Amino acid sequence: MNNNAVMLTGESLTIEEVAQVAIHGAQVVIAPAGQEKLVESREFVYKLANSNVPVYGFNTGVGANKDTKVETEHYNQFNVNMVRSHCVAIGPEASLAEVRAMMVIRLNTLLLGYTGMSPAIAYMYRDLLNNNITPVVPERGSIGEADIACLSHIALTMIGEGDAYYHGEKLPAQDALAKVGLEPLILGPKDGLALVSSNALAAGQGALVLYELKKLIKLADVIYSFSLEAFKGNVSPLNGEINRVRRFRGQNESAANVRKLLKDSYLWLPNIANALQDPLCFRCACHIHGAVRDSLYYLEELMDIQMNSSDDNPCVLMNQNAIMSCGNFEVVNWAVAFEMLGIALSHLSRAACFRTIKLSTGHFTGLPRFLTPDPEHVIAFGTIQKPFTALDAEIRHLANPVSMDFYAVAGDIEDHCSNTPYVVQKTRKIVDNLYYILGIEAIHAAQACDLRQEEQFRFGIAGRVVHQKIREVIPFLAQDRNLTVDIAKAYELLKSGVLLDAINN
Amino acid sequence: MNNNAVMLTGESLTIEEVAQVAIHGAQVVIAPAGQEKLVESREFVYKLANSNVPVYGFNTGVGANKDTKVETEHYNQFNVNMVRSHCVAIGPEASLAEVRAMMVIRLNTLLLGYTGMSPAIAYMYRDLLNNNITPVVPERGSIGEADIACLSHIALTMIGEGDAYYHGEKLPAQDALAKVGLEPLILGPKDGLALVSSNALAAGQGALVLYELKKLIKLADVIYSFSLEAFKGNVSPLNGEINRVRRFRGQNESAANVRKLLKDSYLWLPNIANALQDPLCFRCACHIHGAVRDSLYYLEELMDIQMNSSDDNPCVLMNQNAIMSCGNFEVVNWAVAFEMLGIALSHLSRAACFRTIKLSTGHFTGLPRFLTPDPEHVIAFGTIQKPFTALDAEIRHLANPVSMDFYAVAGDIEDHCSNTPYVVQKTRKIVDNLYYILGIEAIHAAQACDLRQEEQFRFGIAGRVVHQKIREVIPFLAQDRNLTVDIAKAYELLKSGVLLDAINN
Amino acid sequence: MNNNAVMLTGESLTIEEVAQVAIHGAQVVIAPAGQEKLVESREFVYKLANSNVPVYGFNTGVGANKDTKVETEHYNQFNVNMVRSHCVAIGPEASLAEVRAMMVIRLNTLLLGYTGMSPAIAYMYRDLLNNNITPVVPERGSIGEADIACLSHIALTMIGEGDAYYHGEKLPAQDALAKVGLEPLILGPKDGLALVSSNALAAGQGALVLYELKKLIKLADVIYSFSLEAFKGNVSPLNGEINRVRRFRGQNESAANVRKLLKDSYLWLPNIANALQDPLCFRCACHIHGAVRDSLYYLEELMDIQMNSSDDNPCVLMNQNAIMSCGNFEVVNWAVAFEMLGIALSHLSRAACFRTIKLSTGHFTGLPRFLTPDPEHVIAFGTIQKPFTALDAEIRHLANPVSMDFYAVAGDIEDHCSNTPYVVQKTRKIVDNLYYILGIEAIHAAQACDLRQEEQFRFGIAGRVVHQKIREVIPFLAQDRNLTVDIAKAYELLKSGVLLDAINN
Amino acid sequence: MNNNAVMLTGESLTIEEVAQVAIHGAQVVIAPAGQEKLVESREFVYKLANSNVPVYGFNTGVGANKDTKVETEHYNQFNVNMVRSHCVAIGPEASLAEVRAMMVIRLNTLLLGYTGMSPAIAYMYRDLLNNNITPVVPERGSIGEADIACLSHIALTMIGEGDAYYHGEKLPAQDALAKVGLEPLILGPKDGLALVSSNALAAGQGALVLYELKKLIKLADVIYSFSLEAFKGNVSPLNGEINRVRRFRGQNESAANVRKLLKDSYLWLPNIANALQDPLCFRCACHIHGAVRDSLYYLEELMDIQMNSSDDNPCVLMNQNAIMSCGNFEVVNWAVAFEMLGIALSHLSRAACFRTIKLSTGHFTGLPRFLTPDPEHVIAFGTIQKPFTALDAEIRHLANPVSMDFYAVAGDIEDHCSNTPYVVQKTRKIVDNLYYILGIEAIHAAQACDLRQEEQFRFGIAGRVVHQKIREVIPFLAQDRNLTVDIAKAYELLKSGVLLDAINN
Repeated sequence: MNNNAVMLTGESLTIEEVAQVAIHGAQVVIAPAGQEKLVESREFVYKLANSNVPVYGFNTGVGANKDTKVETEHYNQFNVNMVRSHCVAIGPEASLAEVRAMMVIRLNTLLLGYTGMSPAIAYMYRDLLNNNITPVVPERGSIGEADIACLSHIALTMIGEGDAYYHGEKLPAQDALAKVGLEPLILGPKDGLALVSSNALAAGQGALVLYELKKLIKLADVIYSFSLEAFKGNVSPLNGEINRVRRFRGQNESAANVRKLLKDSYLWLPNIANALQDPLCFRCACHIHGAVRDSLYYLEELMDIQMNSSDDNPCVLMNQNAIMSCGNFEVVNWAVAFEMLGIALSHLSRAACFRTIKLSTGHFTGLPRFLTPDPEHVIAFGTIQKPFTALDAEIRHLANPVSMDFYAVAGDIEDHCSNTPYVVQKTRKIVDNLYYILGIEAIHAAQACDLRQEEQFRFGIAGRVVHQKIREVIPFLAQDRNLTVDIAKAYELLKSGVLLDAINN
Repeated sequence: MNNNAVMLTGESLTIEEVAQVAIHGAQVVIAPAGQEKLVESREFVYKLANSNVPVYGFNTGVGANKDTKVETEHYNQFNVNMVRSHCVAIGPEASLAEVRAMMVIRLNTLLLGYTGMSPAIAYMYRDLLNNNITPVVPERGSIGEADIACLSHIALTMIGEGDAYYHGEKLPAQDALAKVGLEPLILGPKDGLALVSSNALAAGQGALVLYELKKLIKLADVIYSFSLEAFKGNVSPLNGEINRVRRFRGQNESAANVRKLLKDSYLWLPNIANALQDPLCFRCACHIHGAVRDSLYYLEELMDIQMNSSDDNPCVLMNQNAIMSCGNFEVVNWAVAFEMLGIALSHLSRAACFRTIKLSTGHFTGLPRFLTPDPEHVIAFGTIQKPFTALDAEIRHLANPVSMDFYAVAGDIEDHCSNTPYVVQKTRKIVDNLYYILGIEAIHAAQACDLRQEEQFRFGIAGRVVHQKIREVIPFLAQDRNLTVDIAKAYELLKSGVLLDAINN
Repeated sequence: MNNNAVMLTGESLTIEEVAQVAIHGAQVVIAPAGQEKLVESREFVYKLANSNVPVYGFNTGVGANKDTKVETEHYNQFNVNMVRSHCVAIGPEASLAEVRAMMVIRLNTLLLGYTGMSPAIAYMYRDLLNNNITPVVPERGSIGEADIACLSHIALTMIGEGDAYYHGEKLPAQDALAKVGLEPLILGPKDGLALVSSNALAAGQGALVLYELKKLIKLADVIYSFSLEAFKGNVSPLNGEINRVRRFRGQNESAANVRKLLKDSYLWLPNIANALQDPLCFRCACHIHGAVRDSLYYLEELMDIQMNSSDDNPCVLMNQNAIMSCGNFEVVNWAVAFEMLGIALSHLSRAACFRTIKLSTGHFTGLPRFLTPDPEHVIAFGTIQKPFTALDAEIRHLANPVSMDFYAVAGDIEDHCSNTPYVVQKTRKIVDNLYYILGIEAIHAAQACDLRQEEQFRFGIAGRVVHQKIREVIPFLAQDRNLTVDIAKAYELLKSGVLLDAINN
Repeated sequence: MNNNAVMLTGESLTIEEVAQVAIHGAQVVIAPAGQEKLVESREFVYKLANSNVPVYGFNTGVGANKDTKVETEHYNQFNVNMVRSHCVAIGPEASLAEVRAMMVIRLNTLLLGYTGMSPAIAYMYRDLLNNNITPVVPERGSIGEADIACLSHIALTMIGEGDAYYHGEKLPAQDALAKVGLEPLILGPKDGLALVSSNALAAGQGALVLYELKKLIKLADVIYSFSLEAFKGNVSPLNGEINRVRRFRGQNESAANVRKLLKDSYLWLPNIANALQDPLCFRCACHIHGAVRDSLYYLEELMDIQMNSSDDNPCVLMNQNAIMSCGNFEVVNWAVAFEMLGIALSHLSRAACFRTIKLSTGHFTGLPRFLTPDPEHVIAFGTIQKPFTALDAEIRHLANPVSMDFYAVAGDIEDHCSNTPYVVQKTRKIVDNLYYILGIEAIHAAQACDLRQEEQFRFGIAGRVVHQKIREVIPFLAQDRNLTVDIAKAYELLKSGVLLDAINN
């Protein structure tokens, strides 16, 4: 928990802010206008609840039970039943940060006045977040047409059932609430549905994956630039003019970033490069990173809408005096964008692997085979090509699409889905693997730089820092040792953010 | 061939114009500014050729031969050799329209002055297009890092070798050129490389796929709206307000389009719908079509850059007084966008299939099972569910990614690729299958509308036309008949553009 | 057509015989015992038809119409309706050989007495085959739970509707029948269903794919052994003893075959090999070919059962005095075996590609880069690495599974399927691509052998023939030429069977 | 640990025995003949080591370093270096049972005399197993051409480095060895390579997956038979005669098993079934389980060879007086068989899911929608369709192949691989998911049976037990409750083996 606060308005939540709340424990504040919308829309719901218009999941059942009428006097029991019966999830648990991300996103979208749930629930989201109570949410079970099977577990905590973490300790939810003086909620009309019917699980986990990725893509630029120094590569493909010939945003940003990282490097000296044209894994790295960036920017735009709009069904439309059935929980557009991103990351992974292989290849680098400091006695980086290509194969496998693999459920009514949670989770796994792959690339590049006995050699502004940070945890390989340890350290260095912070990228 | 002309400037070519030239035979004209750039950059190339700076593929060999020096006196033979040795393609032949699309795109990008090829070659592209001479280009063989294995066949025609079509008749290229008084080209420095080194095959085929898709997505809206009338579906998810709650561009455009198509339909009557909430294949159709649209718009932006910028390597940079090695032939960003599009289309396909199944399901429609006009004696639309799900399974299969499946070639130098031509070609196949799937949906909807004996029934402005056009070629199914014939007719109706034109969408 | 005849007994049909009939036009003869079963089971059916027991598709409707009763007097019309309404297929047409394969397999399985169809239909299959009348059968539309959507077109010909080929000329079926004096059939009870309800499309196409593959795997051994000579590879991994350490059947057969093909080769001379250990694409080739063989043998066993057993539903069980509903049309076990085979072939393809790359790599072969005869003036085999890796990427893509991609159709009754026809068709495509890939490997190996100026060089018994046959159609590459032509010739040489016949493998 | 012992001969190890040792702690004993082979082959190795013949990895380096000579005096350091430098693995850790499985398999294959390693190492394997010392082995990092990156960690323990578990407690390996009085090994010639160069990781994990699967397929039969009772399904497709019409082994075994499980069930009463033909998920279940069985038997045969033969390279061939380079570590045949198995399991999964959906569908079962005991007040099994289809989508995704996704490593020498460890690990995940899916099916079937108020209802011998065992942990759903809990319990019941044991299947 920290002392920063994020003001939620329903329309301005950023990925950065989600991360502030989810990871770094920032407090949340509901903006006054949002609070008004909460109250106003709730009054509207009560007005309609007392009329005779049938409204889905409100005075009717849900899913294939949608034609079963719910009598007014059963609101409370009906909504509690709905919460319980929707608890149909499967482990492992989502991380605490992820559950916090789900809650802040769901809370934010409530403030637009399209949900009409009890304001007390909105306050409960806020209070759970601000008091560091985090419901246990198993992360599997949703097919992405609203994550009802999982989000129900957040609702469970709110009504004092199930388990929750309080400052990292797992307790019965009731006890956790009691710790900070919160009362379990009494649910009114539409509350059960409003609690579960949202894509906040996929959006929450997705937002954090994007948060990671925005760092990872910078890290990829850093490691690439470092490898280029180790490789004594040709900088002509980085030239600003030549990249501007193509107006692709991602490519140009990557190239500009790499030029900046390489400031002061010996690579800018005339005729220094080993070759007129380097292997494509080097020459096209900015194009490949650019493809990831382009995909990422596309997805971010969609995610921005997702986090700042209501995915409720039914949707409260006060200005039309209606609660209307809709399909606004359908998020297939950003599900497929995540699938594209996974494919783009598979390209990035392959390029990193090929660069690492090249760094070990004497006739490309002019350095000893497998970067050994002593060809007679030290094997060095021979076998290590297996683990990074093994992880790359996993990424290739994870990059296969899955969003369209479904069939009709719920009485044949729910005959479309996006599998968005799983799509996001496999992207999360891809990102994690990439920390290893880039880490191993960095180990190679550091070794190559150390072996490169050349008068002209001089690091750029980033390479100097990368090299130093790596050497703080992983010494030069002078003789064979257990590299499993080194790989884990490199992973940690990259994943922790320490390296990127040091470069202040 | 027609009397329209498309003015090529290097920076303004649209997909629509590509289709005008490629499919409809519009003439091309080189804009004066482009012509100046051609001449200017060629002069620059000669200046450099006479200097001693080594330039890739120009006064050096290419690929892994890049360190072999080419002597000035061998320019002609060297470039002819390059063309011939790069002819390594595999059939089937690209369609004539596709080859024309390749030529117009490549010609357009020459006009930016980054290529520096002989202006005579640019004129040759123009003259082949305007005289309806189309080289034979086998469409397989390229892995997408410039389509050199295939584009070489266009060059082959230009030097009077191989075969070409002249007004649709296959002739030796030399004869085809002779028919219109064109002389085979003599190649100068950089010409061989400039002829083959471009992504114009993937871009040309890709542009035409996008041209088709822009129609297909409208067609999908049309058929969906027609099905909704047949299904007596609920229009609340089409509501403008409810869609604007989400700011996704594609979803809102689809919904707006469908609302327009349904103008005057009986579906807008109060309380007419069968159900409060329709199956998701109906309810979320605009969201799903929206995902295709969003993907399409994203891809179009990238393709617009592709068609209006140079993908040459090396790249002539007059303002830097250099010919520079680069990786601008790397098109992985739009390759992965095509993969996303295929995934999105797989969703669209599944939704169409589920709607078609629902139209045959009595307890959803209130109509006879399998839309039989006579349950005792006519089997009607029972077995037809197999072919459209079979095609949908094909689409599912085609939607698997392939862009990252490569390994290092060319002496380990070319260790990245995008397989863009195949990625585009599988998308083309998906689109073709969708004409069948939507056609079968339309057959069902027409039958359902005819069976729907209800006083209130009334077509919207599109449904009326769709129904009439279908019935012009496919009669009401009064008794069992060979439906293979009907399916083929529906396909033709949709693919030909006749239906869409009739609706003037 | 030829003068050989294949005797059909219902239990002894081999893939070889299917090919004899399908490709080479052998006549078919119904064994007397089979004919008895036909008559006997038909009598049984009539006995039951006159009882009141409801039997699926017989005196009831089919699919979700299974609870509609069919009155006796409507047998004829009902069965014609069934045939027509099951015509719901989509092009392209299956090849004539494939349709013949379907017919001979279906005919064979009828002779076991489990079908109970009119013997006249069995005779019709025979007469169509023996008179060279081949129905037009579009090959798409079946999801593999019996290929009813497509096989209906064979039935269509039998009742004198639709089109058929007579000695290769497409005619109205009625006219084709008239040419040889055949009368259209009159259909009795169960006939419609018996005509369409079988997996004969997938089995017919599948049998021919396996027929091809049994040749292809031999061809792969041949080309590999030829490459090994070109590469001056190490034969120790071929050693009989060392392979017998592993008892894998396929590996040992491949190794034995390659040893035989290399008889008399210089590779057996002591210390001749370039290296102690060759790249794995050479060293493990027999293991990889062995994996294909193992997969193939497994699949053949299943296919043998398929071709010699009834897949009818319902199934006539005379000894139980019943016609019984069943699921014997479910062929998922051999569908998934085809998927495995595709994956194994993808491995074989990659190994061939890597060998081809290695043959062009000087530091492995000691020969000039890209096998150029003149490094200064001839580019030779640089670019050709792209087309074979492009085809390999296609194979990788085709090797993705699709059998499990389905959803419930036919009123939710048919909620499982295998997509076997498409699974088989994609395997067919893989095989076709492999002819190109192996052909290109052979081009490389021939060039390398010609460049290998070594006193000790001496072909083995196969290499001599392969080299000669290649050089009959493709000359040594002395200067750059259009290799698209050479690739097509190599493909033809391999696919035609000429090469394999010459080796008499 | 237990008092049973498994005698290792090198040629008779079974999957059952692997499980006995790995899971249940059985002791291992080296058979005298095996011990002789160990000693004999080691003497042979020393004889050769003292000669001047270069032998890969023995008196040469390994991988691309294979042409570096190793001097005799450096054996020890060289082999320790090899072990350390091959430690390049990535977490998570393999389970203790899995590591034990690796060790027992590797030990077994040493006894055939093809390895020639120091007998002391063989004894060390035995002693680690029998003293419950289990090295820490990270499970990722191998691409399947021998699992050198991971198995090196077992070697690490043997030389007293790294960590190991002693009776489940993680300690420095040195300390663990000391606990039981074992000394770290001194390595001699070939020992390093022999320790790491084996597929024992994939084989060990694979053997345990097959062990699980052999139980799972029986469990699948059990749950299916239980569902059939709940569904009041038709038993005609189970008929022995009708299955024998097809001679597929798996299908017939499944049908026979299900008939046995259903002994005494009311389903055998005449005319009891709801329908003449059930949905295919019921009707074809034995065919689908049969496909898994067929795949499993095929794979078992290959695995039997793998576990009882040497995959060493180089391979000691005493009868040829040689140590020979080979490719016997290439296991692509059983890697692709695992891929097939995964695809077959995806079919099994889908069928289970569709059955579960059908059990909730009133018009198929005649029971209340979603099996609610009280349609007005209890929602029951509506939402639960999401989690099992979500897991099924995961399985669909995991069933995608990955064995062929690799590229050349180790100086382009290792240009083929099988990714077998990952292939096995994804199959393991599929199996785990299936416990959930079958568990949820069982929950549905139990509820349906309890709701089925029919005089004739009577469980078969298995159903009675299943129902009782489920009800011991999961009560009848009388009102809505948190089903996440029930799902976890059902998973535990199935995975623990308790249910299967109770049925004594």
